[in-house]
Amino acid sequence: MTMQRTPLLMHRLTDRGARVAPDETVVTLKADGIHRQTLAVTRKRACQLANALGSHGIGHGDRVASFQWNNHRHLEMYQAVPSMGAVLHTLNLRLGPADLEYIINHAGDRVIVADQDLLPLLAPLSGKIGCVEKIVVCSDGDAFSGDGPLAGVETVDYEEFIAGQLDDCSWPELDENSPMGLCYTSGTTGNPKGVMYTHRSTYLHTMAVCMTDALGLSATDCVLGVVPMFHAMGWGVPFANLMTGCRQVLNGSAMDPVALLDLYASEGVTVSTGVPTIWQGVMAAVQAEPDRWDLERLNRVTCGGSAPPASLMRWFWDELGVEMIQGWGMTETNPLGTISRRVAKYADHDLPLDEQFANIAKAGQLIPGLELEIVDEEFNPLPHDGEAVGELLIRGPWIASEYYNDPQPTKFHEGWLVTGDVAKIDEGEYLIIADRSKDMIKSGGEWISSVDLENHIVSLPAVAQAAVVAQPHPKWDERPVAIVVVAEGSGLDADEVLKHCESRFAKWQLPDDVLFRDSIPLTSTGKIDKKVIRAALEEEGYQLPSLQAEAS
Amino acid sequence: MTMQRTPLLMHRLTDRGARVAPDETVVTLKADGIHRQTLAVTRKRACQLANALGSHGIGHGDRVASFQWNNHRHLEMYQAVPSMGAVLHTLNLRLGPADLEYIINHAGDRVIVADQDLLPLLAPLSGKIGCVEKIVVCSDGDAFSGDGPLAGVETVDYEEFIAGQLDDCSWPELDENSPMGLCYTSGTTGNPKGVMYTHRSTYLHTMAVCMTDALGLSATDCVLGVVPMFHAMGWGVPFANLMTGCRQVLNGSAMDPVALLDLYASEGVTVSTGVPTIWQGVMAAVQAEPDRWDLERLNRVTCGGSAPPASLMRWFWDELGVEMIQGWGMTETNPLGTISRRVAKYADHDLPLDEQFANIAKAGQLIPGLELEIVDEEFNPLPHDGEAVGELLIRGPWIASEYYNDPQPTKFHEGWLVTGDVAKIDEGEYLIIADRSKDMIKSGGEWISSVDLENHIVSLPAVAQAAVVAQPHPKWDERPVAIVVVAEGSGLDADEVLKHCESRFAKWQLPDDVLFRDSIPLTSTGKIDKKVIRAALEEEGYQLPSLQAEAS
Repeated sequence: MTMQRTPLLMHRLTDRGARVAPDETVVTLKADGIHRQTLAVTRKRACQLANALGSHGIGHGDRVASFQWNNHRHLEMYQAVPSMGAVLHTLNLRLGPADLEYIINHAGDRVIVADQDLLPLLAPLSGKIGCVEKIVVCSDGDAFSGDGPLAGVETVDYEEFIAGQLDDCSWPELDENSPMGLCYTSGTTGNPKGVMYTHRSTYLHTMAVCMTDALGLSATDCVLGVVPMFHAMGWGVPFANLMTGCRQVLNGSAMDPVALLDLYASEGVTVSTGVPTIWQGVMAAVQAEPDRWDLERLNRVTCGGSAPPASLMRWFWDELGVEMIQGWGMTETNPLGTISRRVAKYADHDLPLDEQFANIAKAGQLIPGLELEIVDEEFNPLPHDGEAVGELLIRGPWIASEYYNDPQPTKFHEGWLVTGDVAKIDEGEYLIIADRSKDMIKSGGEWISSVDLENHIVSLPAVAQAAVVAQPHPKWDERPVAIVVVAEGSGLDADEVLKHCESRFAKWQLPDDVLFRDSIPLTSTGKIDKKVIRAALEEEGYQLPSLQAEAS
Repeated sequence: MTMQRTPLLMHRLTDRGARVAPDETVVTLKADGIHRQTLAVTRKRACQLANALGSHGIGHGDRVASFQWNNHRHLEMYQAVPSMGAVLHTLNLRLGPADLEYIINHAGDRVIVADQDLLPLLAPLSGKIGCVEKIVVCSDGDAFSGDGPLAGVETVDYEEFIAGQLDDCSWPELDENSPMGLCYTSGTTGNPKGVMYTHRSTYLHTMAVCMTDALGLSATDCVLGVVPMFHAMGWGVPFANLMTGCRQVLNGSAMDPVALLDLYASEGVTVSTGVPTIWQGVMAAVQAEPDRWDLERLNRVTCGGSAPPASLMRWFWDELGVEMIQGWGMTETNPLGTISRRVAKYADHDLPLDEQFANIAKAGQLIPGLELEIVDEEFNPLPHDGEAVGELLIRGPWIASEYYNDPQPTKFHEGWLVTGDVAKIDEGEYLIIADRSKDMIKSGGEWISSVDLENHIVSLPAVAQAAVVAQPHPKWDERPVAIVVVAEGSGLDADEVLKHCESRFAKWQLPDDVLFRDSIPLTSTGKIDKKVIRAALEEEGYQLPSLQAEAS
């Protein structure tokens, strides 16, 4: 052993900010104003929390669940639970009671730390989640007292729970492959599946997030993660913030663009993470009131979940001088897999802006240390030529190798994760996501990309949102149908949408129908929920125009 | 095993640039012009080299030495040798024959790849380094032929050696703790000591180098490492460059400021690494010809080896708009330990520039994942208050835990590396190097920092370089003596130097003598060579003025 083999444990990273920048601020938006505490105080409170959990009997590998918005106590959970050797299970508070019941039991959560306003969501689970021994309630006003949401389960106020505990810890030395965090995929088929992150995987991911060519997070940043901390660990950003010692702004339960823009301006936010629907809302709010916010300090936003339209990326650059960094990943990849920066290569300094935007409209290049392949149905590798379309595989040190206590052999192949995404890879090793396998439309033996159609339709100024889903067809197997939300104050008809699509797509790729709706359903993570759209169409007895004609 | 345990092997990083930026250029300055080849070609040639070495019988753990300047073939060694599972031993070509003989035999190098102009330095070792089976000669003109420098040792031309080999490799999967690189410290006492880096340690160091708050290396950079690739693996920068896929400029054997400035301007260099003496030379050259070079693209330089004077850092910022990033490290730390950026904290955006420069004059804050302590002689930790001075300890995943086949128990203590540096740590966790232990001056039981005196003296405009060394004194134990090189065209006497020092130092800390010299000897890594200065003073029978008076 010639070099030290210091285990890669999260506390070595997350304690750093409190040492190098003890006075830096954690800002939380609450219903009644702004809460501020320093990183030094955050670490002290995290130690008190860890000591309180330890007193309760929580030990190595035990699951402690959070059921919380983005706030300072959730951040204390991020710092305390992995550092003490337990597992932070971030419950998705947008799930229904049946999924929550399944997940809590499957994880075997012993303690749930929950925001008070979310307790009604736990009440239906009373008597059904026997593994839970204690509920710790985070309240913003008076200390919580009285009955908890679960009959017979002890319920205490967070502040009372940690009060009187020592505010320092000597964290345990563990094997770096010990579990530290648990996330369940929101699951489009079957039960939700858990991904158990390890100290090693999240440690390496945290370093990667802070690399200049990734999110480039820095001590000089002021970071507002709109991505919920219960979604793929907030893309790992809270861990990175604790490490760099930057200023961080936690948006509570606020997701509306005006509240976010107010925070950007008042706190001097430099970087923010979100999904396309968030950024479309921000764009609309700024367009409605162009002079309301000083966004001088904002210099980049990251966009994941699904591909942002190129027109949206371009608007952020042209109007705000803000780089939209597109990333691709999933819960199973911790989550960062690929990233697309505005200037991806040195030579691009001299590239025309349009060509730069053509590159960043792709889902990005590999984060160092990961490997990508696209394969056919027999797992033969396909060429990286920007033409071949195949199932996307990924591997590397922060990629899942199995689901937690839930064998899913078809999702893993010879050391690779089978992502369920269908993609191309071009000569420059840029990933181009064609679609989720289940969202691809197979018409007459050929694939139609719903994502390409959506992005093209949404580039029409009169369109606020668009979704394209498959509908069954006896001859062609499936045919695309577009659902369109018209922008406020605009008018648009189906022919205009189709004409716009004709400029780019072959005739057989055009939607068979354009349906106008007031809104488009989104998943808990802000993606277009095609499952719900398809179910609604089925319920209303929708038929493709050509079939209606036949039927009549 | 819930997450993949992909071993952290160097080829996963160093192959990346050739995939994501195959057409990016590696530029080498040669005696007769500029050599250019792409990253794709570099990887192909590295594979040919690995296959040639494999054919010779080089396998896992075998040492392959480089005896080369900064050039593209040396970069091919960096890519090939670790990837194939062998150990890259970068021989310091500034060492004398006795040290070289010791090091080559101690390492057991089987092959040496040497630049042709350096062969005369190997000739004195003929018959003394029996472990060496083959010399591979890199020539810029005709292929090398004829007798090699070592009698009876087969010697071949590099291009002939790799010709005809397959230009692709499937690198072996190894344990991540396998050795991959070997560097010897230049050694001020006793024999040189080897540090055997592992794949894991260098992999993690490479990621750290590319973090935004470290060197922030990026695909968008054009990097010129003035630091020799034979010195602490060029600070790890060549590995990072192969990973990011940036443009890189290799300066051959050129170290003079005019040659470097020519490359900065002609190649559009954005970042360069060097030591204080390099940057002082660059400053002098620009001052002499302020309009000669377009340095618009240069935006930061990194400075290690010893602390740069604050006046130098300020000049780069004020005159060139270039951030000088001070780093601290040593061969035993792979080498990056701490780093000081101009804007180290978000709040500093609003700090007056003078206060920012007060922070960066310190040696920096810890790179994430490392830990620092200062201790007294019984290894009791001392407070981080900016006052307490102690021996500096460091630990973490890229810190040496032993020397290669050379037990030095006093250099390691309970998992920490004992650095030999004497330092303070302030409340902001900034490291402030007081001195190398051996360079501290102990006068009347109190320590005097030679580095503080040097930096203060060199801030005089009339001073080009300054060194302060201890001289023996029967009463005080040691007393400081200053050696000063006057800037061209300036005049200065000893009283002016002392008067300048009085403004900051106590009377007992002032040098007893100021000696004017034409130059100051430097070590092979560009640091002031105090050992040589002290030896020269001894040889010339130098005595402190107070002792001369007594003697006469």
